[in-house]
Amino acid sequence: MTGFARRAERVEPSAIREFLSLAGDPAITSFAGGYPDATLFPIEELHQIYADLLTRGSAGALQYTASEGLPQLRALVAQRLTADGMPCTAEDVLITQGGQQGLDLTAKLFIDAGDVIVTERPTFLGAIIAFNPYEPRYRSVPIDDEGMDTDALQQVLRTTERVKVIYTVPDYQNPTGQTMSLTRRTRLVELAEEFDAVILEDTPYRELRYEGQRLPTIKSLDRTGRVVHLGSFSKILAPGLRLGWALSSPEVRDKLALLKLAADTQNGTLNMRAAADYLSRFDLEGHIASMLPTYRHQRDLMLTMLEEHFPDGTTWTRARGGLFTWVTFPEGLDMARFQRDLLIPRAGVIVVPGAPFFAVQPESNHARMSFSGVPDDRIVAGVSAMGALLHEALSG
Amino acid sequence: MTGFARRAERVEPSAIREFLSLAGDPAITSFAGGYPDATLFPIEELHQIYADLLTRGSAGALQYTASEGLPQLRALVAQRLTADGMPCTAEDVLITQGGQQGLDLTAKLFIDAGDVIVTERPTFLGAIIAFNPYEPRYRSVPIDDEGMDTDALQQVLRTTERVKVIYTVPDYQNPTGQTMSLTRRTRLVELAEEFDAVILEDTPYRELRYEGQRLPTIKSLDRTGRVVHLGSFSKILAPGLRLGWALSSPEVRDKLALLKLAADTQNGTLNMRAAADYLSRFDLEGHIASMLPTYRHQRDLMLTMLEEHFPDGTTWTRARGGLFTWVTFPEGLDMARFQRDLLIPRAGVIVVPGAPFFAVQPESNHARMSFSGVPDDRIVAGVSAMGALLHEALSG
Repeated sequence: MTGFARRAERVEPSAIREFLSLAGDPAITSFAGGYPDATLFPIEELHQIYADLLTRGSAGALQYTASEGLPQLRALVAQRLTADGMPCTAEDVLITQGGQQGLDLTAKLFIDAGDVIVTERPTFLGAIIAFNPYEPRYRSVPIDDEGMDTDALQQVLRTTERVKVIYTVPDYQNPTGQTMSLTRRTRLVELAEEFDAVILEDTPYRELRYEGQRLPTIKSLDRTGRVVHLGSFSKILAPGLRLGWALSSPEVRDKLALLKLAADTQNGTLNMRAAADYLSRFDLEGHIASMLPTYRHQRDLMLTMLEEHFPDGTTWTRARGGLFTWVTFPEGLDMARFQRDLLIPRAGVIVVPGAPFFAVQPESNHARMSFSGVPDDRIVAGVSAMGALLHEALSG
Repeated sequence: MTGFARRAERVEPSAIREFLSLAGDPAITSFAGGYPDATLFPIEELHQIYADLLTRGSAGALQYTASEGLPQLRALVAQRLTADGMPCTAEDVLITQGGQQGLDLTAKLFIDAGDVIVTERPTFLGAIIAFNPYEPRYRSVPIDDEGMDTDALQQVLRTTERVKVIYTVPDYQNPTGQTMSLTRRTRLVELAEEFDAVILEDTPYRELRYEGQRLPTIKSLDRTGRVVHLGSFSKILAPGLRLGWALSSPEVRDKLALLKLAADTQNGTLNMRAAADYLSRFDLEGHIASMLPTYRHQRDLMLTMLEEHFPDGTTWTRARGGLFTWVTFPEGLDMARFQRDLLIPRAGVIVVPGAPFFAVQPESNHARMSFSGVPDDRIVAGVSAMGALLHEALSG
């Protein structure tokens, strides 16, 4: 049959999908998911909201609505963004099908084949998956305790043609858990101005802050309308609603809205109504605050267990928020192989081997480990079993 | 700021968006929407379903799930497609964000810039909007009482390089309401085989059949896996859930599923659970059957009114199903101008002027008129007022 488009060559199954199917097996302890903790979802409030929405006379909740999103929800999101240092109105906000659609639409808007996207090193795997069909080239810059290394970024920008987009997860990054310092945020905006690039700021974990100060978003430092700011209800309300947002300059928003219309007409009206009702009837900030102790405890327990059980020569990040720690093993330890040959068969534990999180030059001696939603006894047993196997593998 | 991708040039606001905002004005009679009738949504059943889903212990309905779609829903859709002459299993079905996402993903998979998509003439505006970002060239072939003219199609295929996709709405087409005959369906499949093209079969209105026989889908005639079949719950359950499906060969389905993952991770879990519960607990076929008399009556009333009030030299289609009739006015009558200058200010009526439904060489003397969900008195008053203005304009 007739051939696929050239971009289809960039669309390949992820190496991690195969073993992620194991995550549903109750015999497996999964540090792989990165899902929010389902026991924390405000299910009673949502029960009430959907019951109220689905009554005679409210059929509008099931009808089509505007492709940019339900006006009430856009206004309520704009209020939250304004409170977070990004003054805006409903018209500035585009509702997206989760944060992922914001990644897709932004790449669709800016990337011609061969244009360059700069990512952190490592970076969010889902972003690479979203960007790839638009056939970008990639450059990557290291990330450390202060986030993306802006000196290294400057070097890349100086030496690379056609950089269109700089992609960053500044708060509690996926996969490293690292947070970009205010100094670097400011420097990033300067560099983007100097080299005329778009910054794509992705903030799904921003509200899951366990320690440290709340830092200004990169968008709040933007004076030239070059930041596309993405957010999501997935980690603060529930991922099953698939609701996110994009805040951008009017010119960009207009184009993103047209691409949204082209891609799927609109988000589901019912879920947008439900989220708007949740925001107006209940206390989202209070709900977020109520979840933090659970996540903080899970993080602390995992870090303590890593300290106790993982061998010398292994390092990991201390995330001040979010869902992840990033573990680096001695060079030569191939985490994908270790997991396949030892970790799954002998400990019943899965993590995400780190290689797919590199946009270029993958490194195999890392793992992303999520503590979210794993019961205490499983964190203790899983990390200690993994530690024992690591000792064995590294002494071998 | 840095420029948009080249494809952004193909992403422009639709001429119809501006006046569609008028459709919400209660003083306006809108034949423009093409929305299903909201009074027919099974809101009580959905109330019950969401109430049952959102209870303690069922937090999975709010969590992430598989990007291809909820397994139960894929299986239930596969059952319906099998019953409709397309034997398949859950694995063959991809759940999409409405039919629109199926259009986007299929173009994304097959179309390189400059590849040709053949459409009916006129064709669904939303499909052109979905396809444009992939920078296709278009050819179009006339549609008549038997659907897409396959002789004209053969001519196009013989004389055009790089035809990758033939796009058709075979049942009660948007915007003409026309249905493709079995002879032409068979011929279409032969021609696609001969010229090695993909057929994109879009069937959102298939179940809204008011008269005539149920015809086999084009997919059911496909022996070489070259048909991508799209369907949607929007017109048979509710559009606000944003649920559709794509049925295709395994090779195509694998790639479409990866593009779905890239685009938005997945459909909302909660809505997929709700649709699966509706299909297993309630009688969708019975619900569809219960809606048909209302739509049939609305269609009949509109056709009668057109006959009574529209001037000689005006013709329209008699749709055997779906939501639309396509009206052709004497050449020289520019429907967009007529609407702006006379129809809206003097009659408070809106239709969709036909020009945007042409992928190439737009014609201005048509209108798409939807009868769906318009109260009887409004159909009577709106069509007669429009008829009076047409008489005036044409005698002028």
